[in-house]
Amino acid sequence: MPNNEEYEAVSRCLGNIRPPDEKSMAEARRIQDSLTKPRGSLGKLEDLSVRLAGIYGTSSPVIGKKMVFTLAADHGVTEEGVSAYPSEVTAQMVLNFARSGAAINVLARHVGAAVTVVDMGVASDQEWPQGVVNCKIRKGTRNMAKESALIPQELHDAVRTGVRLATDAIDSGVTAVAIGDMGIGNTTAASAITAVITGKPVGSVTGRGTGVDDGALEAKIRVIERAIKVNNPDPNDGFDVLMKVGGLEIAGLTGIVLGAASSRIPVFIDGFVSCSAALAAAVNAPNCRHYLIASHLSVEPGHRHSLEHLGLVPVLDLGMRLGEGTGAVLAMFIAEAACSVLNEMATFEGAGVSRSRKEERK
Amino acid sequence: MPNNEEYEAVSRCLGNIRPPDEKSMAEARRIQDSLTKPRGSLGKLEDLSVRLAGIYGTSSPVIGKKMVFTLAADHGVTEEGVSAYPSEVTAQMVLNFARSGAAINVLARHVGAAVTVVDMGVASDQEWPQGVVNCKIRKGTRNMAKESALIPQELHDAVRTGVRLATDAIDSGVTAVAIGDMGIGNTTAASAITAVITGKPVGSVTGRGTGVDDGALEAKIRVIERAIKVNNPDPNDGFDVLMKVGGLEIAGLTGIVLGAASSRIPVFIDGFVSCSAALAAAVNAPNCRHYLIASHLSVEPGHRHSLEHLGLVPVLDLGMRLGEGTGAVLAMFIAEAACSVLNEMATFEGAGVSRSRKEERK
Repeated sequence: MPNNEEYEAVSRCLGNIRPPDEKSMAEARRIQDSLTKPRGSLGKLEDLSVRLAGIYGTSSPVIGKKMVFTLAADHGVTEEGVSAYPSEVTAQMVLNFARSGAAINVLARHVGAAVTVVDMGVASDQEWPQGVVNCKIRKGTRNMAKESALIPQELHDAVRTGVRLATDAIDSGVTAVAIGDMGIGNTTAASAITAVITGKPVGSVTGRGTGVDDGALEAKIRVIERAIKVNNPDPNDGFDVLMKVGGLEIAGLTGIVLGAASSRIPVFIDGFVSCSAALAAAVNAPNCRHYLIASHLSVEPGHRHSLEHLGLVPVLDLGMRLGEGTGAVLAMFIAEAACSVLNEMATFEGAGVSRSRKEERK
Repeated sequence: MPNNEEYEAVSRCLGNIRPPDEKSMAEARRIQDSLTKPRGSLGKLEDLSVRLAGIYGTSSPVIGKKMVFTLAADHGVTEEGVSAYPSEVTAQMVLNFARSGAAINVLARHVGAAVTVVDMGVASDQEWPQGVVNCKIRKGTRNMAKESALIPQELHDAVRTGVRLATDAIDSGVTAVAIGDMGIGNTTAASAITAVITGKPVGSVTGRGTGVDDGALEAKIRVIERAIKVNNPDPNDGFDVLMKVGGLEIAGLTGIVLGAASSRIPVFIDGFVSCSAALAAAVNAPNCRHYLIASHLSVEPGHRHSLEHLGLVPVLDLGMRLGEGTGAVLAMFIAEAACSVLNEMATFEGAGVSRSRKEERK
C-alpha cells in the first residue's frame, strides 16, 4: 500500500468500524417477541430487523434513503478468453445504465433506490453522458495471469474512491447502500479473491459467469490457478489480494463497504463479485461483517463459500447471477418490510391477544 | 356435495379453468432472451414473468391491483390439544386484522395490496368492526378426530363463498389475488389434507404449527392419523377431503383459487395451510395449477411435499411460518419486479450491446 499519509482516509475507516449496538439488538428482539405472531414465525424478517437495529443503533430501525452503487471496470485477464462476452460490453452496459435500460435501473426504480453508476476503470475512451461518475483509474486491470492486476497506487486510489463515494452519499442523506458490479471478466477476479481468502480450491469457487461452456470453464479455472501462482497474494491482507488478482470495480466496492460500515450504514451485498469485495474488506476490518447484508445466493458456486466465510445467510435465493446490484435492491425492499414489521405491528398486550401456553408459562 | 343446481357457481368455475396462453408465454420468453443480460441470469424473475404472461394472456403482463384474502375460522380438533395457542386467539386476531395491527396488515401496506379479512367460521359471537366480512358458516368445524369436520352443505357454502369473494373482487378491478389463513388448529387440518392428497405419511407432512413441543407434535400426528382413519376421505375428490378433514377457511381459500383461476387471475399461495387449499382445488380442477404462484417455502415440513405435488417452485425462502398471507404479499412484489424487467428493460439491439459469442453463433 502507498505511504501512510495518503492512506489516511482508508485507514481512518478501518479504525472506525465498531461492533453493532448490542443493546438496540436486544431491545429489538424483545419487541419482536412481544408482537402478535408466534415467536420466530417471520423467520429471516425478524433476524434482519434485529441486525438492522444493531447497525443503526436503534430498536426502531428505518432503511430510509437507498442508493445502489454499480461500479464498472474492465479486466486484462479477458485476453485469456475467460468470458462469454467481449470486453466492449462493459462500456456498452455503462451507456445502458446511463439510459436506464438495464436490469438494475428497472429493479432500483421498483424499490425506490437511486442508482449511482461509476466508471472505475472501463477500457474505453468513451465520453460518458450525464449520470455516469467518472473515477476511471486506468483502462482495465493488467492480465493477472501474467502479472499483478494493479500496482499499489492504483489499488489505493480505487479503495479510496469507494470510501469517498460512500461517505459523500451518506453525507447527502443516504442511509442504506447496495453494491453491484459490471465488468466483463470480473467473476474470474472474484473467484481468485474468493479462493485466496477462503482457502477453497479454485475449482470449487469458479463458475460459468455470464455463461461459458464446459471447456471454457476448465480453462478459466487454469487461468485463475496460474494468476494465484504468479502473484502469490497474501490471504491475510485483503488489499494485497485485491491488488494482485482483483479489479478496479471490486476494489472500489471494498472501499464502499469500509466507508459505509465506518458510518454505521448497512451494505447490501449483491452477488458473487460484490461479495468478493466484502470478503477483502472483512480481512482487514473484521467488524465490517456486522454491516453486511447478504442479499441473495447467486448461482455462481463460489458465492456459497464466500457467504459462509463471512458468516452470512442470504435473504433471497432467486437463481440470479446478473450482478449490477440487482439482487441487492430486492433485498433492500425485504429489509424495509422487516423494519416495518418491527415498527408497526401490534403487541400481544396492546391487541389483547392471548399468548401461547408455552410462553404463558415463561 | 349438494344437488347440481346449487353447485352451479362452483362447477361453472371448474369447467372454466383453461390452460395458460402458450403463445404469450413463448413471446415473453423471446423478449426475455433479447434483454440486455445473459440469458437466464435473472433466474426466477424470468420464469415468473413468463408464467404471468401465460396467465394474463399477454407478453406484457402487469400485476395491477392486488388483494390478499385472509380467511379465518376455528377448528373443532383443537379440543385434542393440537395447538400451542388457545382457540380464542382466532377471534382476537380477526380483531387485530381489523385494527391493522397484524403482520399481514403491515406487509400488505408495504407492497400496496388491499387486505380483505373474512370470518368463514370463527367460534365466537363477537360482532366484528367494519373491515371484517362476515361469511360465518358455522362456529368452527367439528372435531375431525371423531367425525367429519363439515357436512356437505357447509363445505359447499364455504367453497361457493370463496368463489364469490374472488369473482366479486375481480369484478371490482382486482387483478392479482393472494390467499392467507388464520385459524388456531389449521395446520392440523392442512396436514391431514396434504397427507391424503399427496399420499405421504402423516409424520412427514406434520410440523409444529404455531410451536408445539416434541410430545405435542407426536400427539398431533396421532390425531391426524385417527381423523383420516375415522373419515376415510377420497383422495380423488378434493371436496370430499376438505369436508372430512379440512376447515371452513381452507375450503373458502379453495373457492378463491377456483374463482380466480377461472377468471385468468394469478393466485399467490402463502404457506402450508393455503397450499393445502390449492392442493384440494387442483384435484378437481387440474388446470388451476397454472394460475398458482408458490410465494415462499414455509418452515412447516409438509409444505415442501404439497408444492412438489403441485409442481411449483417457491419464489421466496424466508424461514417464515406465520400464514395470514404474509409470504404471499411479499411474493407479489417480486412478481411485479419480474413484470417490470420484462416490460421495461432495453434489448441488446435497442441498446447497442454486443451479444455473447455463444449467442452470436446461434
